Amino acid sequence: MKFTKMHGAGNDYIYVDGFRERLPMPAEQLAIAVSRPHFGLGSDGLIVLTPCAEADGRMRIYNNDGSEAMMCGNGVRCAARLLHEWGDAKGDEVRVMTNAGLRTIKLLPDARGRLTRGRVDMGKPVLRPADIPAAVPGERAVGVPLTAGGQTLRFTCVSMGNPHAVCFVEDPDQFPVTELGPLYERHAAFPNRCNIEFAHVSGPEEIHMRVWERGSGETLACGTGACAVLVAAVLNGLSERAVDMYLPGGQLHILWDEADGHVYMTGPTSITCTGEWLGDE
Amino acid sequence: MKFTKMHGAGNDYIYVDGFRERLPMPAEQLAIAVSRPHFGLGSDGLIVLTPCAEADGRMRIYNNDGSEAMMCGNGVRCAARLLHEWGDAKGDEVRVMTNAGLRTIKLLPDARGRLTRGRVDMGKPVLRPADIPAAVPGERAVGVPLTAGGQTLRFTCVSMGNPHAVCFVEDPDQFPVTELGPLYERHAAFPNRCNIEFAHVSGPEEIHMRVWERGSGETLACGTGACAVLVAAVLNGLSERAVDMYLPGGQLHILWDEADGHVYMTGPTSITCTGEWLGDE
Repeated sequence: MKFTKMHGAGNDYIYVDGFRERLPMPAEQLAIAVSRPHFGLGSDGLIVLTPCAEADGRMRIYNNDGSEAMMCGNGVRCAARLLHEWGDAKGDEVRVMTNAGLRTIKLLPDARGRLTRGRVDMGKPVLRPADIPAAVPGERAVGVPLTAGGQTLRFTCVSMGNPHAVCFVEDPDQFPVTELGPLYERHAAFPNRCNIEFAHVSGPEEIHMRVWERGSGETLACGTGACAVLVAAVLNGLSERAVDMYLPGGQLHILWDEADGHVYMTGPTSITCTGEWLGDE
Repeated sequence: MKFTKMHGAGNDYIYVDGFRERLPMPAEQLAIAVSRPHFGLGSDGLIVLTPCAEADGRMRIYNNDGSEAMMCGNGVRCAARLLHEWGDAKGDEVRVMTNAGLRTIKLLPDARGRLTRGRVDMGKPVLRPADIPAAVPGERAVGVPLTAGGQTLRFTCVSMGNPHAVCFVEDPDQFPVTELGPLYERHAAFPNRCNIEFAHVSGPEEIHMRVWERGSGETLACGTGACAVLVAAVLNGLSERAVDMYLPGGQLHILWDEADGHVYMTGPTSITCTGEWLGDE
């Protein structure tokens, strides 16, 4: 089975061309095998692209534990680039069907003129606490004090299809993300648990952040998390509506468009290698 | 640049055919790039094979921090298989030049008749404490009590080109290897630090072990460590001279030959994938 290993801001998957390749085993098992460190390729998971009548391709994402995910903003950019390079998407606007619905990705040129960057319409943020869900009072959860581990921090809660709680701190690099992240992930205010972001607005158009992902722990980058941080920063009057977002795995550009209310994420894609999976253990 | 990703008992490297391929950057830098999790292929390092007048090929090993290693028993088996498959080694006896000298690997058939297994002559164990080095009295360091972390354990010290100290325990799986390993690695008895093994002899021809590698921490497998454990078991009268050694990453067969005094390690090789490295970050 041929594959491509790609990452978007450090979020890495093994991509399989399901238009022309056949999987050697069920996708759930294959995701575990290819992602396994030392024995496989140590990735975040597997993405299989297949034909789709209503889009240029259909994307299914399997995490490295074999479970299926709904959507991944960094992954769908890489998928769009591949569909374009394979010729399955004709123009620079690529339509990808995901488990969370249709996503349209506009491919953009990098400094060398290659279409390696992608802008993803991430949809409208959901701010009503009951819909996030976050068990806090009021119409919006902005700067809500929550206590865990013996201290109280203020969070702004946003759903981008999945729940996020954003806390602004002085220095995310020095902040005990791995200590407090898991405590707030399972805080009583979040009935479905929550992704937790710690961010610092270092300029009106520049934010640094780290993310503790629900079920995964700290990761190098989280597309929906980056969108949630920008929305939270705007709601708190801390930033403009368009910022450069710096994550441990790379840089994304996030825009909350005033006209249509959608959040747009723009970022890079990188091809690490192409290959032939043999996996002859 | 084309590459092959292989592992031997979970010890994984990116192998490059330096007979026909050119490295896109210095090997030290390439080792870091290809081994990096998420952005690369998350491996233990890089192995480059090149022509050699005195052998079928020359093997240079670079750890995932870019430093160069002397030898790797699991790596040299994989290297021998590749040299054979590429046609650079003609028979089933493959001679590989390493930074620790010439190694001869006998390729053996697996259950399907393919030459995927290899037996490596690992040389004679060094038992004189001053040569290991281990600062303990006597001609041999067998069952020497050493204290660290408030408790005293008995170690048998062996050099297989690199220093090892082996402690027999009831249940390696439950043993606090990651807690005590680093304390004994830097114990005052070991002027050059030491690889630390915790092992249980579960039958006259069967040993289970875990290894704390000097400078690397706990690893899935260590070829010289497996040899050192067998030698220590024989010196303590705990096992036969030929055993199946079970490590977290797989199984090796170790023989301390009475006739020539050499230790022979036999184990599997697995090809995870072949590929073309692009690394276009």
